[in-house]
Amino acid sequence: MLRTHTAGEIRISDNGKIVTLCGWVQTVRDKGALIWIDLRDRYGVTQLFIEESKADKEMLKLVRTLGREFVIKATGTVGERKAKNEKIATGDVEVLVEKLELLNASKLPPFTIEDETDGGDDIRMKYRYLDLRRNPVRNALILRHKLAQEIRKYMDSKDFLEVETPVLIKSTPEGARDFVVPSRMHPGEFYALPQSPQTFKQLLMVSGFDRYFQIVKCFRDEDLRADRQPEFTQIDCEMSFIEQEDILNMFEGLIVHLFKQTKSIDLGTFPRMTYADAARLYGSDKPDTRFGMEFVPLKVKKENIDLVSGKDFAVFDAAETVLGICAKGCANYTRKQMDELTEWLKRPQIGAKGLIYARIEEDGSVKSSVDKFYNQDDLQKWAKAMKAEKGDLLLIVSGDDNKARKFLSELRLEMGTRLGLRDRSKFSVLWVVDFPAFEHNEEDGRWYAMHHPFTSPKPEDIHLLDTDLGEVRANAYDMVINGVEIGGGSIRIHDRELQAKMFGILGFSPEEARKQFGFLMDAFEYGAPPHGGLAFGFDRLCSLFGGVDSIRDFIAFPKNNAGKDVMIDSPSTINEAQLKELGINVR
Amino acid sequence: MLRTHTAGEIRISDNGKIVTLCGWVQTVRDKGALIWIDLRDRYGVTQLFIEESKADKEMLKLVRTLGREFVIKATGTVGERKAKNEKIATGDVEVLVEKLELLNASKLPPFTIEDETDGGDDIRMKYRYLDLRRNPVRNALILRHKLAQEIRKYMDSKDFLEVETPVLIKSTPEGARDFVVPSRMHPGEFYALPQSPQTFKQLLMVSGFDRYFQIVKCFRDEDLRADRQPEFTQIDCEMSFIEQEDILNMFEGLIVHLFKQTKSIDLGTFPRMTYADAARLYGSDKPDTRFGMEFVPLKVKKENIDLVSGKDFAVFDAAETVLGICAKGCANYTRKQMDELTEWLKRPQIGAKGLIYARIEEDGSVKSSVDKFYNQDDLQKWAKAMKAEKGDLLLIVSGDDNKARKFLSELRLEMGTRLGLRDRSKFSVLWVVDFPAFEHNEEDGRWYAMHHPFTSPKPEDIHLLDTDLGEVRANAYDMVINGVEIGGGSIRIHDRELQAKMFGILGFSPEEARKQFGFLMDAFEYGAPPHGGLAFGFDRLCSLFGGVDSIRDFIAFPKNNAGKDVMIDSPSTINEAQLKELGINVR
Repeated sequence: MLRTHTAGEIRISDNGKIVTLCGWVQTVRDKGALIWIDLRDRYGVTQLFIEESKADKEMLKLVRTLGREFVIKATGTVGERKAKNEKIATGDVEVLVEKLELLNASKLPPFTIEDETDGGDDIRMKYRYLDLRRNPVRNALILRHKLAQEIRKYMDSKDFLEVETPVLIKSTPEGARDFVVPSRMHPGEFYALPQSPQTFKQLLMVSGFDRYFQIVKCFRDEDLRADRQPEFTQIDCEMSFIEQEDILNMFEGLIVHLFKQTKSIDLGTFPRMTYADAARLYGSDKPDTRFGMEFVPLKVKKENIDLVSGKDFAVFDAAETVLGICAKGCANYTRKQMDELTEWLKRPQIGAKGLIYARIEEDGSVKSSVDKFYNQDDLQKWAKAMKAEKGDLLLIVSGDDNKARKFLSELRLEMGTRLGLRDRSKFSVLWVVDFPAFEHNEEDGRWYAMHHPFTSPKPEDIHLLDTDLGEVRANAYDMVINGVEIGGGSIRIHDRELQAKMFGILGFSPEEARKQFGFLMDAFEYGAPPHGGLAFGFDRLCSLFGGVDSIRDFIAFPKNNAGKDVMIDSPSTINEAQLKELGINVR
Repeated sequence: MLRTHTAGEIRISDNGKIVTLCGWVQTVRDKGALIWIDLRDRYGVTQLFIEESKADKEMLKLVRTLGREFVIKATGTVGERKAKNEKIATGDVEVLVEKLELLNASKLPPFTIEDETDGGDDIRMKYRYLDLRRNPVRNALILRHKLAQEIRKYMDSKDFLEVETPVLIKSTPEGARDFVVPSRMHPGEFYALPQSPQTFKQLLMVSGFDRYFQIVKCFRDEDLRADRQPEFTQIDCEMSFIEQEDILNMFEGLIVHLFKQTKSIDLGTFPRMTYADAARLYGSDKPDTRFGMEFVPLKVKKENIDLVSGKDFAVFDAAETVLGICAKGCANYTRKQMDELTEWLKRPQIGAKGLIYARIEEDGSVKSSVDKFYNQDDLQKWAKAMKAEKGDLLLIVSGDDNKARKFLSELRLEMGTRLGLRDRSKFSVLWVVDFPAFEHNEEDGRWYAMHHPFTSPKPEDIHLLDTDLGEVRANAYDMVINGVEIGGGSIRIHDRELQAKMFGILGFSPEEARKQFGFLMDAFEYGAPPHGGLAFGFDRLCSLFGGVDSIRDFIAFPKNNAGKDVMIDSPSTINEAQLKELGINVR
């Protein structure tokens, strides 16, 4: 090793030792007679100290050529610092440099290598190798490494085997778009990159592997929204001879383990909430339960509740659903604030028509934006239903049931944020279970599997397959943390007849089912065990643990929203000879 | 869980317990009054027992429909077996079945699910999910899992960070052929799949990551030889602020750890052998050192040795090199055997012109195939040089130095095999170091980097860059176990000027170097640390640990020699709409 110590490990107990460090010049402070250099490596920063009067001439000459990000090797004696720095672990010591070697020079970096850099996103991506020198980015990837290690430890301890599934597989026309790879050896034919190892993990269950997992790259050729990557990493898992509860317990255990190991947080037992309850209380299948502010029905037909109709307020009379939330202590919102909140809700991204509100005044009276239609008695009933107290603000939306819940869900999150109820250092976890098996597409009038065609309906709902598809619930589940879907999965169908019936419902002819899922169907003929599993989005999981919204800094070399890697300039053209060999032309 | 125990864990200490097992029917032995079922899962086989006279009628009916590979759930009481089976861990017990449930039926498998199957390669690949039920294949993948776990444990303990590098990267015309991926968002442009993360790991060193590793899929669109896969897995590693010896020690430590953990073998310290010595003694840069049989020079110009010239044997007179090996105890080889061995050496795969041999007879005299030219004195000198004793056979080849060594290397391995000296349960490890930096291509008269253009020449040989490229040695190294190159790597160049010089030597204009390696060259301008690394072939490493030649069973879903996955039928055609969207045509 060129060094005896890293720049993160020297302590006052090393006083008097002769050490050699290697690393990058973070800063040089040259006061003439005294020179300090902050030397940085992955492990920390150590202060180097040079006294002009005592230093070798050649060395001094070298010191004075050093710039930011130069790579040096310094040997010297550890001493106690006069001005200690409590912010860093090496802050009590400095190294009195006796020998200095330049290992490599550096051009001036295009942005500062500091926690808060002056570099914009584009330049940071172009020089990602410099961006990766910054603490927040490096720490994000160190966290990712730790999480992956702990995941593998836990899974191994539970007898899961990590099995690598192939990357060059077969394109299937259903679902999201595949990335494809032309085959040179079979001109005109293509491999596809996997969107997930779903079929392979089910095959491994048929093979009796019993417990499988994999931390694996997956690929989806989608139009990229912010913070989506064409290649992403899944923690993919599957188990045999289990029931849904076994899977929930097993993977709840995984997340508990990760929180304990990396954050010393004890999550306890995860509550389970049905999809129906999540929709009812939060208007979302991934509710942020760090705070309450549950929906209160003022008018919901199927719950037979109506506190609003028949008062000549046409909007509420016509609405299928009227719902409210109670924002504690917000009665003092100004008219301007309310207008702004209303406009926020009416933005095209959300698309609500309006917002009704009511304040609980200091004297207990209620003052609403619909006082024209509702008297104090009416309003007090609302306030009571919503358990509102003096100083609270009631926010009420109405309309078609689905839309009203969607609008109010967005408003609830916004109010949670404004009220500081969404603390990144707090974690609220739950399982959302009993998802609907099917969703109806208004456009083509077809039923689609909400999860995928291999998801098992709940046994007690199987009779509904012939009568009421919309009411069939699936053995499908999502893990939700702080309003983010961290993972999800299902118990799979292992019965051939039920599988055939599902394909029929989903509009596949037997021939189509055979063509698309032939090898899996074949495999199911040879003794498929009851099985199920789930997958976590690893990039998202890392960012959650890191307390950051964007996944980008948890990926070493991410692509931008146009799917480009601007550092290596990819994708790019390839030459005619390559195209010819692959048997393809560019149109 | 549908079961209380696995089929591998019940012991005599469980006697009397009520247990529930799930698994596959391995065999049913129906003797009328008594019925035995071998129930198999990933963990083992447990015998189920049913007494006709005591069993429920319905259950009996079910039992008699069971066929091989049916999936069942059985509940019953653990009892002691009368006829014990010492071959399996559960061989002392059986389960007296009280309740039986059919979880899934199975068609008759197309081959037997036994250690020695009746299925040929093709059918096994088509029904890989059934092949994976067989012990040898399952155990191979379990070994792979264990090795991966232990690798990560070791690397983590040494402060290496596992960083995922991108799969969708950029095509480079140099080197092996890339698989490419057309970009839909950027029509006419392509991503490429990585042949290795080489440039990214070097960038991570520039980023100060200090110690990086990754177990990672790589891709090479080569014409497949037997046992090559278009996608394969590497253990990819890189370190900063090191010298060659640090890397050798670190990764020697890794392999020692793996052998200790998975095979309880202590490998000790790895010998280091120069490339020159490996060529001199074994004619190979990956010598199998499980046995000696080193080359003995009878005529080697540069060593100034000649025991053969001037005796009117034109072949040896004309030869640049004459070399022999001594096959202990093989003097009794018949004329037929010798002819056969000679023919073996003359096959086109090897291409030798012939084989000279000499036996040491019981009386100590030497009888050779060139007695016409060499008298007993001459031959005794050969025997002495080769330390031959009574009963030994000398095998001698001649010709151009390179070719003679290649031929004799093949012959040495063949003799090692014939003499049983290549025991799969023994492991002989070494580092081959000081590889030549360049190799000269006779066809185009150009010099190529033997490793890659970023490999550092040995400092003491740098002066030869201007005078004698063929003599420049690189800081490049391979780890060899039992004659297989398990991994290899190099110290990289981190000095910009030296790198520019290397590109010049390799025939790159500055513009070409910039075009192909621009982003890496840029990165090197911003403070690249001294660094180096290596990569292991993980598939091959697994097969070595498994004591098997073929890597195929250490890959869950391998492709055949035509690059096809016959199970999923990939590659395959894609539809016109997909092609159009991707902006390509099939020629």
